[in-house]
Amino acid sequence: MPKIVKHEERRKLIAEAMWRVILDKGMEGATVRNIAEEAGLSLGALRYYFKTQDDLLVYAMALVQERATIRIVAVTKRDLPPKEMVIAILLEIVPVNEETLAEMEVWFAFIAYVKHRKDSLDVPDDGVYESVWKLIGYLETSSLLRPGLDVELEVERLYALVNGIAMHALLEPVRVNSERVMQTIKYHIDSICI
Amino acid sequence: MPKIVKHEERRKLIAEAMWRVILDKGMEGATVRNIAEEAGLSLGALRYYFKTQDDLLVYAMALVQERATIRIVAVTKRDLPPKEMVIAILLEIVPVNEETLAEMEVWFAFIAYVKHRKDSLDVPDDGVYESVWKLIGYLETSSLLRPGLDVELEVERLYALVNGIAMHALLEPVRVNSERVMQTIKYHIDSICI
Repeated sequence: MPKIVKHEERRKLIAEAMWRVILDKGMEGATVRNIAEEAGLSLGALRYYFKTQDDLLVYAMALVQERATIRIVAVTKRDLPPKEMVIAILLEIVPVNEETLAEMEVWFAFIAYVKHRKDSLDVPDDGVYESVWKLIGYLETSSLLRPGLDVELEVERLYALVNGIAMHALLEPVRVNSERVMQTIKYHIDSICI
Repeated sequence: MPKIVKHEERRKLIAEAMWRVILDKGMEGATVRNIAEEAGLSLGALRYYFKTQDDLLVYAMALVQERATIRIVAVTKRDLPPKEMVIAILLEIVPVNEETLAEMEVWFAFIAYVKHRKDSLDVPDDGVYESVWKLIGYLETSSLLRPGLDVELEVERLYALVNGIAMHALLEPVRVNSERVMQTIKYHIDSICI
């Protein structure tokens, strides 16, 4: 494997170790020591790949977003009618399986942590707001949006719905299971489409 | 002041000191030491009012909910037509001013912290899900819900919308200001009513 690829691979393994530590112990437990142990590395080796804990944090957040983007791009290549396409993309954003549920939990932990940092950290945007704009715009240009709707408020509403249901899937997994998440998203899109 | 009232007053002051510490430093900074300092008490005095940090945490969470309940009960006593009543109550649940924004931030910090505790903690429910059920039920019995709606999914959708917009008000206060929160809630209720 070329050295640069191997370097990047190793960085990903470390970021994934960080996710597992966060899922198990929360952000409070995500110390450099715990992450190195989970990754099977010495502290020195970990510092070789990430100079500071913030470097690792920003990278691990970006990696969550990158994975979601890859899944969404894959969906856009499928041959689906516009409304079904919009629903399929939304189902890659909300957590409907163990993998995406874990990603969402890690993301919320990141957000809660970063919010209380006094210094600014160059946190990657999760891109959900922009995606929601595109999806509502796509329904509109496909002439599928019901007449009389306020496009800007539809974006705000869908954005809140997506993050709200994601939070509930995380906190109340028994009631808000993947079936319920899918139903609710589909129901909402049906309600704004002709 | 009777002793028991004074005791309860003091417990409230300590819980409010805990909120301020959380708002300033996050849950990571909400140590007994920091809370005692913020409340102007010695560690010993704080321990007199709350035997353990968990006792204080559970009390402080219950107090957030109690405040919201008091505001909601006050709204229900106003003379409003059903739809306006529902909107007014929802606007006591979502954060539309500095006080409720702070409460929401404290609540999210609590939730994120409690989620990663291995032992169970008797956490008070925030009561939002139950409130949303009542509100949709009230619109239904008032014959205001549009025909053909799925009541259960309307509850799920409104519940997700309320918590999603609350989260956005907290994380993106410039775009999702109180005006925008109110617009979105009103828009949604209009969309499901005749």
